[in-house]
Amino acid sequence: MQSSCSVSMIVIGDEILNGRTVDANATFLTKYLFKMGLHLASIKFIHDDESDMNRALTEAFSESDIVITSGGIGPTLDDKTKKTWASYFGKKIIERTDVAAIVTDNYQRFGRSWQKGMNHYDFFPEDFIALKNPKGLAPGLGFYDSTKKKLLLSGPGVPREFFEMVEVEFLPQIKKYFSSSFKKTYQTVIRTQGVPEEKIFFELCPNLWNDLESIGKVSSLPHTIGIDIVVSYHGNDSDHENKKEKIKQIVNSTPLKNHVWQWGNDSLNELVLNTAVKLNKTFAFAESCTGGLLSSKISDLPGSSAAFWGSVISYDNSVKKNLLSVKQETLDAHGAVSVEVAKEMAEGVLKILNVDFAISTSGIAGPGGGSAEKPVGTVAIGFASKEKSGAYLFHFPGDRIRLKDRFSDKALLILLELMREK
Amino acid sequence: MQSSCSVSMIVIGDEILNGRTVDANATFLTKYLFKMGLHLASIKFIHDDESDMNRALTEAFSESDIVITSGGIGPTLDDKTKKTWASYFGKKIIERTDVAAIVTDNYQRFGRSWQKGMNHYDFFPEDFIALKNPKGLAPGLGFYDSTKKKLLLSGPGVPREFFEMVEVEFLPQIKKYFSSSFKKTYQTVIRTQGVPEEKIFFELCPNLWNDLESIGKVSSLPHTIGIDIVVSYHGNDSDHENKKEKIKQIVNSTPLKNHVWQWGNDSLNELVLNTAVKLNKTFAFAESCTGGLLSSKISDLPGSSAAFWGSVISYDNSVKKNLLSVKQETLDAHGAVSVEVAKEMAEGVLKILNVDFAISTSGIAGPGGGSAEKPVGTVAIGFASKEKSGAYLFHFPGDRIRLKDRFSDKALLILLELMREK
Repeated sequence: MQSSCSVSMIVIGDEILNGRTVDANATFLTKYLFKMGLHLASIKFIHDDESDMNRALTEAFSESDIVITSGGIGPTLDDKTKKTWASYFGKKIIERTDVAAIVTDNYQRFGRSWQKGMNHYDFFPEDFIALKNPKGLAPGLGFYDSTKKKLLLSGPGVPREFFEMVEVEFLPQIKKYFSSSFKKTYQTVIRTQGVPEEKIFFELCPNLWNDLESIGKVSSLPHTIGIDIVVSYHGNDSDHENKKEKIKQIVNSTPLKNHVWQWGNDSLNELVLNTAVKLNKTFAFAESCTGGLLSSKISDLPGSSAAFWGSVISYDNSVKKNLLSVKQETLDAHGAVSVEVAKEMAEGVLKILNVDFAISTSGIAGPGGGSAEKPVGTVAIGFASKEKSGAYLFHFPGDRIRLKDRFSDKALLILLELMREK
Repeated sequence: MQSSCSVSMIVIGDEILNGRTVDANATFLTKYLFKMGLHLASIKFIHDDESDMNRALTEAFSESDIVITSGGIGPTLDDKTKKTWASYFGKKIIERTDVAAIVTDNYQRFGRSWQKGMNHYDFFPEDFIALKNPKGLAPGLGFYDSTKKKLLLSGPGVPREFFEMVEVEFLPQIKKYFSSSFKKTYQTVIRTQGVPEEKIFFELCPNLWNDLESIGKVSSLPHTIGIDIVVSYHGNDSDHENKKEKIKQIVNSTPLKNHVWQWGNDSLNELVLNTAVKLNKTFAFAESCTGGLLSSKISDLPGSSAAFWGSVISYDNSVKKNLLSVKQETLDAHGAVSVEVAKEMAEGVLKILNVDFAISTSGIAGPGGGSAEKPVGTVAIGFASKEKSGAYLFHFPGDRIRLKDRFSDKALLILLELMREK
């Protein structure tokens, strides 16, 4: 149990529960609250239904001090949040000029004008706090129950609006009513590759879990190409350094140390980009089976153009030959999914884009195209620098989407290793 | 309220609530249950904590007949599902030879052998149903409370294992105990672009929502480049056809008809690929700001190699010039983010990859790189076919990740329109 104050989240919307859209707000809030040192007790997704909403709010307040909700504050007729929360706290919906002023401001920010009667944004529960919406039109809702010391904060369902409202409007409210509750949480993350979860904890180092539990709460989670072990604890910066050091000693005394590719929480794409920028080197990709995903993982990062020059996506063999100078003989002798072709692809893109490092992927993401010799999940990953080139063959489990993801991350890891040898 | 039986889902795992990993199981289950006509009442994400788990299970059974959980059935010490659910129903954990047989099978499928004592997989609650795990090692759990007529089904947290277990093991259990509850749900989806939600329902067609509500439950949801309006109803295939026709008539009598780009639920990438395959045409991309995402959206689809030849990702201007033959004068006169450069990029990739259609993107995804004249969110999208070429300039709101997504979807829509003119 947590000693700091606790938050529960309720996500309101039919569209998520019937599979039409994928949530982004809960994903954002989990990361944000963790960073702020606030404990997230639960997230519940419910329908736009008054009785479901009432039940969820009662449950949430029974387990937490703060309840954050998203969805249902728009101008359409299925938006029930305002009236349901008002009646939950026994408040009436009234016409409020202070809310009309916020709405007018919101419209002006989009170069539009708002008049009374255009919609019902200015009808708002009495005694509720009206919150600005820096990226949208509908005001957010807040209510502090001073008897029970419980805070409700409700934002829009549209992710970019919700994110901004949390940071700009919700946080000051939380600080106002729960200032003593911010308690920093630290994590030490051990990112490993190439060993399954079970093998780590039952064969390679059977005492590791208990040894790490003596330092903090341990969790273990699979990522695309390995297992991350996460140790979480409260404290201050200097405790954190000591604990991190102790965790390193524990892990380095086990055979797992050879499988650690990072002590820390950088994502693989960030680590690759930062390494290249530090070395002042450029790189490019030749992608077949990953079909753009490998490049997209790098271009997701601001500033990636400092080191990432571009790619050739050679889905069709004609592109492999014409742009990347893969030889017809190599394709005939070994097939497109082969270390020989992957090597020529990497060499080809290194030359044509004139970069320091190049990585290529050629594999079978399925569901079709597999054979007994080269089943779905087979991938050849090539590498090239001015000094050397080569390729590896791997096999991964998974469906098409997962395989593209795993192939891409394995390719990033090979690029990282290639640069680290420098 | 639903007349068919109702399902609640509980997702167990610290890693999601502290933002280390993003859920995939709930996303899968929502789509799957919707397809099967089962009503999903709620999804709750909770910690690996026995009292949280007990409370969530009580809540879930108070609102639903069936509770499906994911997570916490692995071999590590933070896996608490088995013992918590056993004690919830007043059952003991015992050594079970029938479960040992399932575990042995699971191991053999991975070419490994299992012996008693290797782990605790064969310690299992008495009277519980043990379920096979076709893609993993840990058996799933089931329990039917015949007095209260409630069914609990618990699967693994690893998505590929969970997905398979739901289809192969959970569904037969649900059919066994709730056979009369399968009730087909239909949706008619109106996918629009270029008008904000508010403008649709308050200006363009203020009666539309109520008119559609006379046919089924209406929901409205924003996607990257517009609004989808979804009407859901129960019935049979012929009701569905009639209702769909009526919905079309309603929408076509409003100005919204000019903004509909699809009557149906195909995703944009599928629609693009299927259109190209039907026309027996090939296409390619020249991507700058979208950095591979546009290509990746197409390569996500099985069989995309039938029409998608490949791409050039020209992040650096040298790649635009050397591979795509963009002229230095054009870059100097108009800058990389311009209709002039986008047009030359599309023409360049059309020629070098020798395809029927080409689309290019050059824009500013931010957070840096914007100016007063060309702010973050500006994108030039070029097109080229053997007959014509050109480019458009757009401006979208959003952060880097969202902008890459919007730019890519707008580019796909322009490709779709280019092909539909044929």
